[in-house]
Amino acid sequence: MKLTKLLPAAALVALPSMGLAQDTVAGVDASTDSVFIFNSLLFLIGGFLVFWMAAGFAMLEAGLVRSKNVTMQLTKNIALFSLAAIFYYLIGYNLMYPLGTWSVEGVLSGVWGPGVLEAVGVGRDGADDYGYASTGSDFFFQLMFCATTASIVSGTLAERIKLWPFLIFTIILTAVIYPLQASWKWGGGFLDEAGFLDFAGSTVVHSVGGWAALTGAIILGPRIGKYKDGRTVPIPGSNLTLATLGTFILWLGWFGFNGGSQLAMGTVGDVADVSRIFANTNTAAAGGAIAALLLTQFMYKKPDLTMVLNGALAGLVSITAEPLTPSLGAATLIGAVGGVIVVFAVPFLDKLKIDDVVGAIPVHLMAGIWGTIAVVFTNGDASLGTQLYSIVVVGIFTVVASGVVWFILKATMGIRVGEEEEINGLDMAELGMEAYPEFSKG
Amino acid sequence: MKLTKLLPAAALVALPSMGLAQDTVAGVDASTDSVFIFNSLLFLIGGFLVFWMAAGFAMLEAGLVRSKNVTMQLTKNIALFSLAAIFYYLIGYNLMYPLGTWSVEGVLSGVWGPGVLEAVGVGRDGADDYGYASTGSDFFFQLMFCATTASIVSGTLAERIKLWPFLIFTIILTAVIYPLQASWKWGGGFLDEAGFLDFAGSTVVHSVGGWAALTGAIILGPRIGKYKDGRTVPIPGSNLTLATLGTFILWLGWFGFNGGSQLAMGTVGDVADVSRIFANTNTAAAGGAIAALLLTQFMYKKPDLTMVLNGALAGLVSITAEPLTPSLGAATLIGAVGGVIVVFAVPFLDKLKIDDVVGAIPVHLMAGIWGTIAVVFTNGDASLGTQLYSIVVVGIFTVVASGVVWFILKATMGIRVGEEEEINGLDMAELGMEAYPEFSKG
Amino acid sequence: MKLTKLLPAAALVALPSMGLAQDTVAGVDASTDSVFIFNSLLFLIGGFLVFWMAAGFAMLEAGLVRSKNVTMQLTKNIALFSLAAIFYYLIGYNLMYPLGTWSVEGVLSGVWGPGVLEAVGVGRDGADDYGYASTGSDFFFQLMFCATTASIVSGTLAERIKLWPFLIFTIILTAVIYPLQASWKWGGGFLDEAGFLDFAGSTVVHSVGGWAALTGAIILGPRIGKYKDGRTVPIPGSNLTLATLGTFILWLGWFGFNGGSQLAMGTVGDVADVSRIFANTNTAAAGGAIAALLLTQFMYKKPDLTMVLNGALAGLVSITAEPLTPSLGAATLIGAVGGVIVVFAVPFLDKLKIDDVVGAIPVHLMAGIWGTIAVVFTNGDASLGTQLYSIVVVGIFTVVASGVVWFILKATMGIRVGEEEEINGLDMAELGMEAYPEFSKG
Repeated sequence: MKLTKLLPAAALVALPSMGLAQDTVAGVDASTDSVFIFNSLLFLIGGFLVFWMAAGFAMLEAGLVRSKNVTMQLTKNIALFSLAAIFYYLIGYNLMYPLGTWSVEGVLSGVWGPGVLEAVGVGRDGADDYGYASTGSDFFFQLMFCATTASIVSGTLAERIKLWPFLIFTIILTAVIYPLQASWKWGGGFLDEAGFLDFAGSTVVHSVGGWAALTGAIILGPRIGKYKDGRTVPIPGSNLTLATLGTFILWLGWFGFNGGSQLAMGTVGDVADVSRIFANTNTAAAGGAIAALLLTQFMYKKPDLTMVLNGALAGLVSITAEPLTPSLGAATLIGAVGGVIVVFAVPFLDKLKIDDVVGAIPVHLMAGIWGTIAVVFTNGDASLGTQLYSIVVVGIFTVVASGVVWFILKATMGIRVGEEEEINGLDMAELGMEAYPEFSKG
Repeated sequence: MKLTKLLPAAALVALPSMGLAQDTVAGVDASTDSVFIFNSLLFLIGGFLVFWMAAGFAMLEAGLVRSKNVTMQLTKNIALFSLAAIFYYLIGYNLMYPLGTWSVEGVLSGVWGPGVLEAVGVGRDGADDYGYASTGSDFFFQLMFCATTASIVSGTLAERIKLWPFLIFTIILTAVIYPLQASWKWGGGFLDEAGFLDFAGSTVVHSVGGWAALTGAIILGPRIGKYKDGRTVPIPGSNLTLATLGTFILWLGWFGFNGGSQLAMGTVGDVADVSRIFANTNTAAAGGAIAALLLTQFMYKKPDLTMVLNGALAGLVSITAEPLTPSLGAATLIGAVGGVIVVFAVPFLDKLKIDDVVGAIPVHLMAGIWGTIAVVFTNGDASLGTQLYSIVVVGIFTVVASGVVWFILKATMGIRVGEEEEINGLDMAELGMEAYPEFSKG
Repeated sequence: MKLTKLLPAAALVALPSMGLAQDTVAGVDASTDSVFIFNSLLFLIGGFLVFWMAAGFAMLEAGLVRSKNVTMQLTKNIALFSLAAIFYYLIGYNLMYPLGTWSVEGVLSGVWGPGVLEAVGVGRDGADDYGYASTGSDFFFQLMFCATTASIVSGTLAERIKLWPFLIFTIILTAVIYPLQASWKWGGGFLDEAGFLDFAGSTVVHSVGGWAALTGAIILGPRIGKYKDGRTVPIPGSNLTLATLGTFILWLGWFGFNGGSQLAMGTVGDVADVSRIFANTNTAAAGGAIAALLLTQFMYKKPDLTMVLNGALAGLVSITAEPLTPSLGAATLIGAVGGVIVVFAVPFLDKLKIDDVVGAIPVHLMAGIWGTIAVVFTNGDASLGTQLYSIVVVGIFTVVASGVVWFILKATMGIRVGEEEEINGLDMAELGMEAYPEFSKG
């Protein structure tokens, strides 16, 4: 997302077809209309593709947990998305882009009266009463990014965290933590002013989800039986087909994630850029998948499907900070490094006894850091120092903020289910419902 | 769908860029071209998203029936969509929008000669030989709504209805019942003239599917063992992951369902409206999901995933009659009421011994009625009397028409499988094929 | 794909709004910009829909193999797509559209320097420095077609082929075999000059995948136990829900496959054509599904879901050579014939002891041949002789080329797993990982 929301006027100036305005009748400018429509359409298409990623996370996580915890994982995923939708609307969006002044009265009056989407006029009353895209489409698109951040956390903490503390954390993450730090870059804040480059959010979205997950994983502790007598006990997921489906869904959604972050499609240059982003995003995922495939073949003599899936996802995260400037070859290599990171980071976390059920920390945090650094290789405007500084600032903020929340939740209501509940599975213990009630367990 | 198909001229007049026509060469009007392309594109994108809902219904229903009936449920879903596609083309579309005169000869000649899509010229021979969007895109979009209506019925009647009577009912529903009543509103008929407002079909699509399902469920009777000694016996679905996937698919498809029903995207105002509809549709689903989550937590002490899924769907149905005028807050509340309705309606139907396998009657009929009424809260043009009158008219028509069809089918070929077939499962008894042949049943 | 890439100038001339250029200021042409953006957008939407077909093949195949081979089938699917992405970029794309001169140096320099996507300027420096759509969008779209061809092969050869020989074949197929023969038609080669018509690739994509699969199946031999004592032993798939999901995914993706192959959406005529293609594609699938449903009911007294699924897919393949000129009725019938072909071709292949695990040869090869012939019924420009000639030329080339590759692979590294590995399943033997580890086998 290269344009800062605080500068819509600048965006308008940049539109090449504005010069046509004087040729048209009564202030109606067909070219500007088209630009507005194309830009809004990009947000809508990008938005529904990123929405689809919520289903991808749900399938990936349902496939990678044991069947006794699947219903809980599904419940968490649909609930976290819904809460993100509501709390990003109530608090987060205004916190991130403080165009108006946020107030309790404003939100309450917005419930039945005109709401946040009216912040920018979209009527056709004059020549200059609208920005470069509809506010509704922008809100829809931004919301999906906030929800993605929350989705990342649920996988890491699966199979042992209680439902309600997790959902309360989700509320604070989507209402406050994500929007606040996102405003530092995408709201035109101090990281943006410092020259930090993070096109679609390797740091702003993925590492933030990853840091919150890492903090939670450390405070929550590993699953019972995961680390025994100094060894790591593999706990295979219950359904690799669903995990693969989830990966394909995420891959598809990522075209909207990165492509939509161009934030404009109404000029020849913008649509060409969106096209390059689509191609680069795809090839980075391919690079990550193949790197993990080859590496697990060479290291373990047997290719590991879950590593290949996470390799593809790490490739996608790696290219997210800069999907535009790399050539296809560079994008493939940047993604491939992401795949390599995953193959080494998964056992490394296990060595530290940090139990990440689905591998979200290697994929979203570590590949996110790599992707943010890799910007300097292909984008001349990037400064390695600023990139590192921003990674550290966002990291410290997210770890401290989410750490405080996790500790308060732990001290007050507790965040972990009882030992018996964990062993029997969260589905029967907390929900009284099995995901696959008819299939006997092996 | 606020525009009536009988008034394409009015639609054209409303396009602000028409004034540019005289500036262009040889009758070629770039702005009007763009409007035409944007509108057609909206239908195409909306159409493929609503097509995707057919997969959503299939997964939702496959996940909520027992594994012994899964193959049958999948067969019904792919067959009903295919039959809807064929019979809406052969009969329904012309019945719904009687632009030309329908005749057997016309259809037959259309098989190899020019067909229904030629009804409106799409060539570029003059300035006024085309409407506001391509007929093919409109047909494609409308067809998907007809198919959705049929999809609603299959879930309620699952696990006991015979394949062929169900498919024959589907043919009559999609060829006659749906198009006839849809023409009363969207074909510019008497309900439209009376001022009935139903933007994307809370009544026209969802309640019609729901009424047809309710009528069928009463005539068909409950599954063996569902109601025993005055108690309701819970029959859990075989695969909650697939049910969740189905819900996410439907949620995604609904952006096309409601957003496409704006019927135009070629002006700044239209695309801004489509954007608001996307945002409102999303938040209504979130409201429905969270309402069901909280309510089942408070009422039963354990959140119920199937209620959360149906809550999200009920939120979507609730906002469908008016996804444009509500603020985000109002849309969330309208959806939340839908979620509440589901939580109370499911046990209520059980009390009446009406066996609705997937909860389609609460979701599509009851939330559909609520959504149609809720229009009056946010749209000043709506009259509560007209909304109620239209709900009743459509309801009586659908119940009577589908009741007659169900009774004829029952009297002639029978609609219910034998007791032994039902107990052994429809898959082996009717199809000789299991969905999960390798997995032993618990 | 009716436009030849070598004639972008001709395409530009055909754009009706070009006449407006002289009215605009400083060489900025709003109409041409819109055409460029619409065309690129069609490639992007079409491209992500065809990408989604990769997930469809993965789910279809995972559902139709036995559970002991599911992890391997998933690994093959994600790996083949990733390899196709990389090798079509490195070699295939330039081989297919030799706009520039391919060289090892060019590719290597493109890894970190400017890459293939820069072949056509997309800047906004002058009036004539860009073609009719962005190169990146075209590459993205074309890549997905190449990957589809590779996806077709994996299903036929499932449950017995080794991973690495299969992936090496995929590399050669996507880098050389597919692009070379595709250039004969879509690169403006001799088949195109001979008047061969294949709109979206019934022959160029589907039959090529089918021929490669057939050649591989013959050389590889049938699975152990498939043909015993002169009888064909049915080996049911492990998960029909996933197979159905895969079919719906492919059906959805096909709107992009055929619709995007119009290659232009920037004029009223083009978007109307895209719309007709969407409608025809949908109805052909419906025709294929219903034909297979009725036929299996009449022939075997029990409808066969896997035949219905393959019938829908065969309907889609059948309409792919000419989705534009048929009326809805003709498209339904063309698709229905595809469904009939599948029902007869599956047992016919078994009689020949050619073991095609998922039915890809009937669906993609036989229905592909039918679809290529059926062009002559609705498109007056088609010559039956040229269609047959092209089918034969492409067939002989693909069989010989892939036969040579299969034989070399067989002679050097071997292509088939050992007997014990095959009986125990490829998942444990080759990957050491089960797809559904918790579910006991029946």
